Amino acid sequence: MQIKVPTLLLDEDKCLKNIQLMTEKASLHQINFRPHFKTHQSAEIGSWFKNLGVASITVSSVQMAVYFADAGWDDILIAFPVNLLEIDNINKLAQKIKLHLLLESVESTKFLIEKLKFPSGIYLKVDTGYHRTGLSHEDDENIMEILSLIKKSPNLKLTGILTHAGDTYSSKSKAGILNTHKQSKQQLEVLKKRILINFPDCLVSIGDTPGCSLATDFSGVDEIRPGNFVFYDIMQYFLGTCNYSQIAVAVACPVVAKHKSRNEIVIYGGAIHLSKEAVFDENNRKVYGLVVKLQNGKWGKPIPNTFISNLSQEHGIIKTTSEIFEQIGIGETIGILPVHSCLTANLLPHYSKGDNRKIIKFRFNG
Amino acid sequence: MQIKVPTLLLDEDKCLKNIQLMTEKASLHQINFRPHFKTHQSAEIGSWFKNLGVASITVSSVQMAVYFADAGWDDILIAFPVNLLEIDNINKLAQKIKLHLLLESVESTKFLIEKLKFPSGIYLKVDTGYHRTGLSHEDDENIMEILSLIKKSPNLKLTGILTHAGDTYSSKSKAGILNTHKQSKQQLEVLKKRILINFPDCLVSIGDTPGCSLATDFSGVDEIRPGNFVFYDIMQYFLGTCNYSQIAVAVACPVVAKHKSRNEIVIYGGAIHLSKEAVFDENNRKVYGLVVKLQNGKWGKPIPNTFISNLSQEHGIIKTTSEIFEQIGIGETIGILPVHSCLTANLLPHYSKGDNRKIIKFRFNG
Repeated sequence: MQIKVPTLLLDEDKCLKNIQLMTEKASLHQINFRPHFKTHQSAEIGSWFKNLGVASITVSSVQMAVYFADAGWDDILIAFPVNLLEIDNINKLAQKIKLHLLLESVESTKFLIEKLKFPSGIYLKVDTGYHRTGLSHEDDENIMEILSLIKKSPNLKLTGILTHAGDTYSSKSKAGILNTHKQSKQQLEVLKKRILINFPDCLVSIGDTPGCSLATDFSGVDEIRPGNFVFYDIMQYFLGTCNYSQIAVAVACPVVAKHKSRNEIVIYGGAIHLSKEAVFDENNRKVYGLVVKLQNGKWGKPIPNTFISNLSQEHGIIKTTSEIFEQIGIGETIGILPVHSCLTANLLPHYSKGDNRKIIKFRFNG
Repeated sequence: MQIKVPTLLLDEDKCLKNIQLMTEKASLHQINFRPHFKTHQSAEIGSWFKNLGVASITVSSVQMAVYFADAGWDDILIAFPVNLLEIDNINKLAQKIKLHLLLESVESTKFLIEKLKFPSGIYLKVDTGYHRTGLSHEDDENIMEILSLIKKSPNLKLTGILTHAGDTYSSKSKAGILNTHKQSKQQLEVLKKRILINFPDCLVSIGDTPGCSLATDFSGVDEIRPGNFVFYDIMQYFLGTCNYSQIAVAVACPVVAKHKSRNEIVIYGGAIHLSKEAVFDENNRKVYGLVVKLQNGKWGKPIPNTFISNLSQEHGIIKTTSEIFEQIGIGETIGILPVHSCLTANLLPHYSKGDNRKIIKFRFNG
C-alpha cells in the first residue's frame, strides 16, 4: 500500500483482541454487551462483534442507527437525548427493529407518547456525577413522573436505567476511576430498588471505557456499553486504562518539512485529520498525538520524547530530540497515535489495514 | 427549510460583503488578491469571488487544488510544503493549469527539479516569526542555495517570497496585530532587495486574516492571501478583526435537553460538528461557540452570557442565565457561531442558505 495523504490505519489484530477481551469480560460477569459503535462507525468492524455473538449495540445519532440497521443490526439503542425533530426517522426505525431511546425529561416523554407510532424500548438517563445529561438519581419528582407516563403508554416500554460515568475521564488515578465506577453503579442500584415494584425487568446499564476496562466488580449491573475500547487511544493510555500495544489505530502522515534549529518536523496531518483534542503528558506538555514508526501498516511503541506539539488545519508539528530528528526524512511517512480515537476516526473517510482494501464507514451527511 | 440535524447555515449577504470588502482593499492598494479557499472549500462560493474579478487562488492540499481546477480555476497556489508523495497529481495539475508550489528546503527543491515534468511557479516560504514552517529570512545559506537551484531549473520559476504571519493570532491587541503585520512585511522587503538582481519579478505575498483585515499599510506587498475573512468567526471577533455582524456562518443545532439546576441546555451539536477549537472570552471562560437565535436561517447578535461550555462527540452544552434558560425549549433549533469557521466548515458536508438548496463543497476523501 502506498500512502500519499493522511490515512487512518487499523491494526486488525489489536482491534480484534480489544473486542474479544471486552466480550469475554461481559460474558464472565453474565451481563449483556451493548457496545457503543460511535467510535468505529463501520459496518465491517461491527461484523467482527457479531461474529463473537454480540447482538445489541449502542449508537449516538438517529442517522447512525439507520446506517447500522441497514447493516443488519436489529437491537439498537440511540444513547442520546431524543431529538424530537427526527421523529419521522425514529418511527421508521421503531417499525423495523427493536429500537431503544433515551429519555430524561417529562417534556420529551410526552412528545414520544403523542408521536411514537410503534413500540420502543426506553432507557431513563441518570446523571451519576458527570453532569452532562440525565436526571439526578435523587430527582424523585421527575423520575416518577416520567416512569408513570411510560407505564401508561402502550408504545413506551422501560428497558432500563442508564448512566455514562464520563467523570472517569477526569480521574487522576486508577483508584479514582474505580471509585467513580463504584459510586455510579451504586446510585443506579439504589434507584433500581425504588422502581423495581413497577418495573421488575428494568436493566441497569453503564458505559464508559475507563470504568469497563479497569473494573472487576459488576455486581448489580445488567449491561455495559463502552465504545472507545475498540481502538483505545493515548487519552486512555494516560488514564491507565490501556497499554500502548492495545491502541489499534494510527494516522499515517507524510513528512513535508524539517526545522533543525528547533528539532521540529512538519507533517501533512492537521486538525482536520486528527482533531484538536489534546492531553497533557507526564511533563505537563500539551500533546495532540504521539509518534510511531510504521512498517507495512503496523507500528510498535511511541518514539520517546517525541509528540505532536501543535496542529493547524492541515499541518502537524512534531517536537522531537536531535537524535530522532535525523532519523526521519522528508517524503517518508510517519504514524500518529491519536489523542481521542473517536474524533479522529470520525474525521477520516475510511480505514486502511495496510493492504489496499479500504474499510468503509458511516459519514454524517447533514 | 426544516432543520433536523446540525446544519451549517451560510448568510450569503454577509459572506458577499466580506468578499467584496477584501477584494476592494486589494484593488485599492493595487495588489493581487489570491484568497485562500481552504476556509470555504466550495466551488459555488469560489464563483462569488470570480464574479468580482478574482483570478488566482490559494489552497492547502493537492486534492483541494484538483477540486478547484476541476471547477475552472487555472491559477492555483498550494500553500503547503510540497508533499513529495503526491508528485503524480502535482504533475497532472502542472500540465493543466498555472500551478504554484511552496518550497522551504533544499531537499524538496532537488526532488522537484528531478520529478517535475511541467513548468510551475515556486513560492519560497519565509518564517517571519510564527515558527510553523518556512526559512528564516536571515537563513542566507539555504535561501541562496534553493534560489540558485531554481535559477538553473527549466521547470521551476520563482513566483515570489511568501509568509503566513500566523503569530497575529496570538496577539493581545489590534496594535499587536498591526505590529506583527509590519515586522513580517519588512522582513520580506529586506529579503526581496537581496534577491532582486536575480529575480526582478519576485512577488512579496502575505496572508493572514487578522493582518489583512486591520492593516492599511501594504507598501512593499504585491499579493495578499487571507482565507478566514470569507466567514470570520468568534476567534476573529475576540481578536478584534471583525464585528459580530460579519460572521457569515452559524451551525443550527436542535435542543435536546435542559438542566435547570445549572442553567444548561444540551444541543445535538458536538465536537464532530463544531470542532474542539476553543477560545477564552473576556471573563477567561473557555468557550467552544456563542449562541444566536435563528429566524428563517438568519441571526443577530449573540445572546449575552450564553456560550458553549463543553463539547463531547455529539453533545454540546450551552451555559446560560436563568432568564434565557426559560426562553429556549426542547425541540427548538438554536444557532452556534463557531470559534474557528475553517474547522467547522470542514466538518460539515454542505452549506445551507436558509432555503432548501444545499451548497456543495469539497470533502477530503483519503
